[in-house]
Amino acid sequence: MLTVTVEQLERFIWRCLTAVEIPEPDARVVAELMSEADLNGSDGHGVFRLPQYVSRVQSGGINVRPNIHIERDQNAMAVVNGDDGMGHLVMRYATELAIEKAASEGVGWVGVQHGNHAGPAALYTKMPMQRDMIGIYIAVGSANHLPPWGGTELLLSTNPIAVGIPAAEEPPIVLDMATTVAAYGKVKMAAQRGEQIPEGWMMDKFGKPLTDPARAAEGFLLPIGGAKGYGLALVFGLLAGTLNGAAFGKEVVDFNADSKSSTNTGQLVAALSIEAFMDVDRFKRKVDGVIRSMRASPTLPGIDAVRVPGERSHRVRMEREKNGIPVHPGLAQKLDELARELGVDGLTAAA
Amino acid sequence: MLTVTVEQLERFIWRCLTAVEIPEPDARVVAELMSEADLNGSDGHGVFRLPQYVSRVQSGGINVRPNIHIERDQNAMAVVNGDDGMGHLVMRYATELAIEKAASEGVGWVGVQHGNHAGPAALYTKMPMQRDMIGIYIAVGSANHLPPWGGTELLLSTNPIAVGIPAAEEPPIVLDMATTVAAYGKVKMAAQRGEQIPEGWMMDKFGKPLTDPARAAEGFLLPIGGAKGYGLALVFGLLAGTLNGAAFGKEVVDFNADSKSSTNTGQLVAALSIEAFMDVDRFKRKVDGVIRSMRASPTLPGIDAVRVPGERSHRVRMEREKNGIPVHPGLAQKLDELARELGVDGLTAAA
Repeated sequence: MLTVTVEQLERFIWRCLTAVEIPEPDARVVAELMSEADLNGSDGHGVFRLPQYVSRVQSGGINVRPNIHIERDQNAMAVVNGDDGMGHLVMRYATELAIEKAASEGVGWVGVQHGNHAGPAALYTKMPMQRDMIGIYIAVGSANHLPPWGGTELLLSTNPIAVGIPAAEEPPIVLDMATTVAAYGKVKMAAQRGEQIPEGWMMDKFGKPLTDPARAAEGFLLPIGGAKGYGLALVFGLLAGTLNGAAFGKEVVDFNADSKSSTNTGQLVAALSIEAFMDVDRFKRKVDGVIRSMRASPTLPGIDAVRVPGERSHRVRMEREKNGIPVHPGLAQKLDELARELGVDGLTAAA
Repeated sequence: MLTVTVEQLERFIWRCLTAVEIPEPDARVVAELMSEADLNGSDGHGVFRLPQYVSRVQSGGINVRPNIHIERDQNAMAVVNGDDGMGHLVMRYATELAIEKAASEGVGWVGVQHGNHAGPAALYTKMPMQRDMIGIYIAVGSANHLPPWGGTELLLSTNPIAVGIPAAEEPPIVLDMATTVAAYGKVKMAAQRGEQIPEGWMMDKFGKPLTDPARAAEGFLLPIGGAKGYGLALVFGLLAGTLNGAAFGKEVVDFNADSKSSTNTGQLVAALSIEAFMDVDRFKRKVDGVIRSMRASPTLPGIDAVRVPGERSHRVRMEREKNGIPVHPGLAQKLDELARELGVDGLTAAA
């Protein structure tokens, strides 16, 4: 397995993005956020997505010189129009605005319209946490893979939520989850690697389990908790999409199949200023206590340890900062092809 | 099966609450909200809970003359101290405050400390919806029935979420769900009715399914989506409990076992003013469209129709407004005993 440093990865992404005319400072922001995803172990949402992003830029689906601006604003809330720019850029803008609002209003809630796929949800909880805030992010997924519960028409996406809550001595709690049993990125990654997927992830239109990811288009993802996960996907879509004037339901453009059309992707980010609620240090120590009490629980037969959300990702990050980021051979080959196509140095060029 | 009118139910609850010294106007508010729960089909969270509430009042766990007040306040947010009053009263106060804040700031986010069990989550999304707002409610459950994923210690509750989103011609979307496969109220109700519970609701400490609700104390509820439901219960608890200075985790007082101690129950309610985001009528028509598109989906073999969250409850409400509210014999008997004990007229006394 090829491994690269985060710097190598960042420069490579930057080279590819600038090669398709994304302005240098914007390419730097996106490269940083994308590499951050890989560093944290979000393998289905980092450089894995680069060929698709590049193809969207080349086909005109992404605007390389967007006028990202505030569309609506009322004290604690705003709706940001991303003007079809790279999703990461739009979301960074929206998150900074939410933080600014939370600092003055206690809470900031910012919706996005005309955004794009912006990587793993957890990314946008980090900036609020660095400012002693709780970050919440919800997105309308970029393709519908889920029917309403009991139905077969693909009207919903995996609409994920992330919540980041800072602790004192412990790593923060970072929940980052799709409302489906598995995120579609994991299915795509299994397909690329030629692996099968477990039963319970997908179902076909006759209600039978689907385990071959190459047949993914014939079926759909399953929501967590049946009707409950469907309900979450539905209300998250209304909050992150419809309420912001963004696409949801039938309006969602499948960005796997269409690189040209504006996706009008909807997202929302909320920031809660902890000091508005209570003393920040006291809160963080309380979170430490909660984390430690969870870990101290006796376990079920056959389970080695109880974990808290974000723990695996934190461990992967420590490990990858030290030993580099592994790049699966299938992906490495695709990235080589991309470099050749764009006429830029490959992934392993000296950083 | 005994059936009663909503007026009979309301008066009965009012009689019982005033009999234990809850001031008349407060008793009226609580009676209204509790009957509303039964009317909507939340059978585990309405009058079913009355004997327990009365017992908490009698034992001193609920303060009948609370000084409900704002503990912290910053523009779009506040923390309300419920002074151990009836949960419904505290939540009504908090919800009104969230609505007021949303009207001026676009978003209102109000946390509660020193609250109490306040009935079904959906109740507190209704007031915002009546003001053309989206309502979100999250609570720390009033007893721990859930271990962290892979563990066996009861450190978490079913920590529910409700989201209410108004539509134009269609009934609103009202998601009201525990983060567990089943709410504990359903287990209690099955126990009272002498029924078994389905596999998948609970597990014992050896990882075996538990289907006899009389043995509930030997096991625990299962979260939706395994680690995901655990993650939701955890972050909801931190947001609704810890952040508001309320109890969470080990601090949670089991209100089934202890009627004396202050539970310091934590809740949060958020209101989003739709008109801050977009034209209210346009939004509601969009929601109508989403609802209709879900219902129009073809169904899986054996499924008669796709539903949207809140639909069943809305139908139950229409039916009960017309034909009355059924009261299960086991519950009717308990309520008769309560009436005798308190020296008030029974449930079926003329309204």
